[in-house]
Order: sequence, then C-alpha cells, then structure tokens
Amino acid sequence: MEAVMNNISVEKAKTSKIHEVDFENLSFGSIYTDHMLVCDYVDGEWKTPKIVPYQPITLDPSAKIFHYGQSIFEGMKAYKDDNEKIWLFRPLENHKRLNKSAKRLAIPQLPEAYFMEGLTALLQLEKDWVPTTPGSSLYIRPFIFASGTGFHASPANAYKFIIACAPSGTYFSGSVKVLIEETYSRAANGGVGYAKAGGNYAGQFYPTQLAAEKGYQQVIWTDDNTHEFIEEAGAMNVFVRIGDTLLTAPTNDRILDGITRKSILDIAKDEGIKTEVRKVSVHEIVEAAKNGSLKEMFGAGTAAVVSPIGAFGYKGEDYELPELKDSFASRLKKRITDIQYNRAEDKFGWRYPVS
Amino acid sequence: MEAVMNNISVEKAKTSKIHEVDFENLSFGSIYTDHMLVCDYVDGEWKTPKIVPYQPITLDPSAKIFHYGQSIFEGMKAYKDDNEKIWLFRPLENHKRLNKSAKRLAIPQLPEAYFMEGLTALLQLEKDWVPTTPGSSLYIRPFIFASGTGFHASPANAYKFIIACAPSGTYFSGSVKVLIEETYSRAANGGVGYAKAGGNYAGQFYPTQLAAEKGYQQVIWTDDNTHEFIEEAGAMNVFVRIGDTLLTAPTNDRILDGITRKSILDIAKDEGIKTEVRKVSVHEIVEAAKNGSLKEMFGAGTAAVVSPIGAFGYKGEDYELPELKDSFASRLKKRITDIQYNRAEDKFGWRYPVS
Repeated sequence: MEAVMNNISVEKAKTSKIHEVDFENLSFGSIYTDHMLVCDYVDGEWKTPKIVPYQPITLDPSAKIFHYGQSIFEGMKAYKDDNEKIWLFRPLENHKRLNKSAKRLAIPQLPEAYFMEGLTALLQLEKDWVPTTPGSSLYIRPFIFASGTGFHASPANAYKFIIACAPSGTYFSGSVKVLIEETYSRAANGGVGYAKAGGNYAGQFYPTQLAAEKGYQQVIWTDDNTHEFIEEAGAMNVFVRIGDTLLTAPTNDRILDGITRKSILDIAKDEGIKTEVRKVSVHEIVEAAKNGSLKEMFGAGTAAVVSPIGAFGYKGEDYELPELKDSFASRLKKRITDIQYNRAEDKFGWRYPVS
Repeated sequence: MEAVMNNISVEKAKTSKIHEVDFENLSFGSIYTDHMLVCDYVDGEWKTPKIVPYQPITLDPSAKIFHYGQSIFEGMKAYKDDNEKIWLFRPLENHKRLNKSAKRLAIPQLPEAYFMEGLTALLQLEKDWVPTTPGSSLYIRPFIFASGTGFHASPANAYKFIIACAPSGTYFSGSVKVLIEETYSRAANGGVGYAKAGGNYAGQFYPTQLAAEKGYQQVIWTDDNTHEFIEEAGAMNVFVRIGDTLLTAPTNDRILDGITRKSILDIAKDEGIKTEVRKVSVHEIVEAAKNGSLKEMFGAGTAAVVSPIGAFGYKGEDYELPELKDSFASRLKKRITDIQYNRAEDKFGWRYPVS
C-alpha cells in the first residue's frame, strides 16, 4: 500500500507488531516500531525520503561504514500528553547538530525539510507506539552512515539517512556511582568529541568496562592532557552543584553541545538558581566533597534526562554525595519533563506539536 | 558446491568475475574477488569461519555498527612471485594488532587459528586474483564490526569478522605535498589512536578536505595538545631524514604501531642507516628545511608502502624537499618490496608462504 504524507511516500507494513509489545515493561531502545524513514544520498544529492516497513539494511562488505566509521546520529524523544497529543522537544536543535556533526565527519548536509517532514510523517504514522506509562516515551534515532563502497580511506560517495523509533522505558534507574577517569580519554583537542559521531561512543566502552569491574556504573571523562578538568559523564553532559551554585563545563571541540544541557541551564536560571559555565576541576570537586559543600552531581542527556550521581571514585578513594530532599536534579528534571509531556507552561517555546 | 579447506567450509561462487577485470589498470581497493571469509561471534563465542561467495551483508537498522562505531580493521597484501608462488608479509603481526585494537574497542578477541587458517584458505582459493603487474598486489581487508542490535550505548553482543580481497594497483603515485596540521587532531592521549578503529579514519576526512582545498594531498598530524610534534602522515606513519639520520616518532597510545614502520626501522638499521625513534618537533623540521639539512620525509604503511613527501606547508609557508638520486625512501622501499615479492633474501623471516 502506497500513500503520500508531507510529500513523503509511505509503504505501509502489512501487519503491525504493536500487539506483541508489553508497554508496561519497556526496556530502553530494544523494540522497534513498524516503520522507518529512509533517505539516500547518491549522485551528489539527497533523494526524497520515504517511509517503509522497518526492515534490514543490505550493504556491500566494502561499504565505508564498516571500515572508516563515517557515521553520526541524534537521540530524540516523542512524548504523549494526557489528551493523546504527541510532542517533540526542540527538534530543530537536533537537525542543526546533526549537520554540525555531518560537517566534521565529511558527510553531506541534510536539508532541514527532509529531517522535519520525514520525522513528522513517521511519527504521525507511528503515533500508537508512543507509550504512556510514567517515564516512558518513544525514543527516536535519526542516523546517517556511509553506504558508499571502497577500501580507499576517503569519504564515501553515498550515504543513508534513517529514522527508527523504539518505545522505551527509563534509561538508568536510581543514582549511579561514577569513576573520575585518570588514564583514558573520550576526545582530543581539534578532534570529533563535539560531534555525535559513532566512534566517540565505541572508544568509551572499554574504559567503562574497566570502571564497572571496580564497581562504577559510569565514567566521568576528563581532559586528555591533564585529566584535571571534568568534561562529560558517560554519554551525557555533567553538572556539579557546589553550595548553591550549579556548574557545568563550557562546550568546546571536545564536549557535546547537549540539548538537555542547555535546556537545564535555561531552566535553572529561570528558577533563580545561580549557574556558572566554566571549567570545573577535579581538585575543586574533591575539596568540596571533603568540606561538605559538594551537594550534587548529575548527568544530563536525552536518554536519561537527568541522572543523579550518588558517589564518585577518584585516585582509589570513594566520595559519597548527600541525599537531598529538594535537589536541583529532581527540581530541574521535573520542570523539563513537565514541559516535554505538556504538563506545564512552555515559556521557552521548546515543545513542538506532531499531531 | 561445498568443500572443506583447513577445516573451513567453502561455498564456491557459481561463476567467477575474474574475466571482467582489467588487471593492467587496477585502481586501489575497488574491485573484489569472488569469495570472502565470514566468521560470526554469537552466544559468547566465535563460530567456525566459512568461505562464501562475495555478497552483501544484511543487518538490522539498530545494529551497533551504525550507531556506536564499534569497528576495527587490518590492511594486508598478498604478493605473487615470478614462480606464481603467493606470499604474505608478517601476517601474525596483523593478527596481534587486530586483537590489540579489539581490546580497546571492547570487541572480543579473535583466535589466531581462525585468522590465519581463514586467511590462508581464502587466499588459496583466490590465488588467480593476485595480480602481477609491477607494484600491484592483492589487497586484503580483515575487519570486525558490531552486528548486535540496540540503541543502548554499550558494547554489542554479536560481531562479524570478514576478510575481503581486492586486486589493487599502487595507492599513491609520485610524491605528495602535505600540510602540517595546527588546528585539527587525529587522536587523544588515552584515546583510541593506536588502534585501527574505524572512527580514527572518519575524523581525518574533513581536515584532509580542508588541506586539499589549499593544495595539499595529505595532512601531517601533530599532538593534540601543542601541535608541536609530528605523529602520523594521513593514515600512515611518518619518517623524517635530517642529515643522514632517519627519525620517526615512538609509538604510544596516539600512534599506530605500523608493521611497515617497524620493518623499515629494521631494514634501515641493517643498511647501516642511523635511526632515532624519538619525538620529532615541527620546529626542528622547519629549521632543518631552512638550513638545508632536511633531506627527506615520507609516509610508510601497507597500502602505499613508502610514500615520498615532496613539500610541506606550515603556518602559510611552503617548504620544498630536495629530489635525491639515491634517497633512503627509494632504497628502503626497494628492499622491503624485494622481500615482499620474494626477489631478495629474507633475513628477518618476514615472508609467509600461502601456496
């Protein structure tokens, strides 16, 4: 069956898998909806996107994605409100960042209309897949990879842009214990750390496994030169509260310009919380932990929203964080998710209606 | 048709593409042979490799290779001598490095027997594909990527190891003009620069494109912190000759332990050439260029073997290198390729017979 939505052709799945899904017990990103958006870059241009049944991708063994890591992605969520209306959160920011990543990875720029119209058409088709159990959402994964072939180490001449969706529960549950990294690094000065490039994630897995063996669930990344300044927490941006000031590192070419990160900064200011965007040293955090002024640390990102840190390890020593009744983390998480789920006023204009 | 070679099952291609190939005019890595080796990691172990017709790979859109860059590879060549005998060059080193890369990228270790027996069986089957025109060889690409699925940023639970082969001509022709990089970087301290990880290559494409726009074919990578010390040339190791001393940077966690690099060091010593493995500063190279003691610069790697550098750019200034009659580059390239093609004594025991 073929139809056209927003100028995008739709080939509908013959049967739906939706009735096989236990929406009360969703894990994160492991069940996919009935359809996906596919858009090919060939002959020097992005062709019109189309919606097709969710299906395997077939590639030549010499496709450059297998050899040279030319891939980027975004993480987004669709939220269903009490009136069954579906919302996105700052989707244009995801498109902008996708193109920023694309530039750094020598991938052709994707037109905004293809991204936004493709995304909207796909979500309108998959609206029944947006879950409504508390904390759940439809996780959306737009990604681009090199499908062009050849063993020459150079940019591909063909790419695929795909959007797939996965009804998902919460990413982490509870607070995590993290290790401040002193040996391994996530990003180089002048490297690709600010891009959502596939290779940035693969490089984190081994150090994270080593940390896990010591009992830490995540790694706090530090600068690769001195390991004195904190940069990110796992695959999230990181915030530190010392006294009543909320601190986070400035974005640069090593740190991802997280959409949750900047939304939290805006909300914190609006809540009257003092914020400082500046380099935060490990020394400062350890001192604050010792003198009792370290109140909170948390990760911030689309998948986990706000992920409180309960303790951190550094140079063989563990430091516990206090359990606060009215933490910044919980206040900020409530405020941002209330906006996302259309439970509160959106004075920033961040919500974007899909249906 | 099914057969068994070295315990490896072989499904032969119904027809061969070999008669369509113009062996006199081969490019690099763009035509593939009739078969490939495939080995799957599932249920916690590498299954027995098999040889199958060269064919597309089918993956779920959520396969982690598309999202998290979990991929590594090797580059090797098979050489045919005047008696039609086929040789490899230090293949065990490639296996060792593949596993070193695997460890850093949280990919399971591949048994040596699967690598060596798979490689040998494949090459015995594809022996007619090893070209004999001068400078040509059968380029061999062993690679592993994450085929396991899920949008959770964690190591995959399934991988594919594949060996594909491409009859290939020379990689570069003639000497190249390179730009010493002052802004972008290839690798972080504590990062994955020493691994042959896909993401290391994708990150080089954009800076290389910028250099190309200014008329440079390759980038000389410098350390990400000061940009004062040279590290690699494009996707190769880099050598500098000042006076009669051959210099190259020591390997570390940012620099690939190149097999051509270390073979060249051994050959140079054997030839009585003074070598120094130490940090080489850009300042030192520029000074040597100015006072006339800079004699040569060249890249070294499997694909290009030895790639002479004719000029370099730095801070807006171009420096030409002299054209030498009996350069170290040409002496060392002749000696290493004579060993590879079985035209000279192999006192180091580097040649490995396939047939």
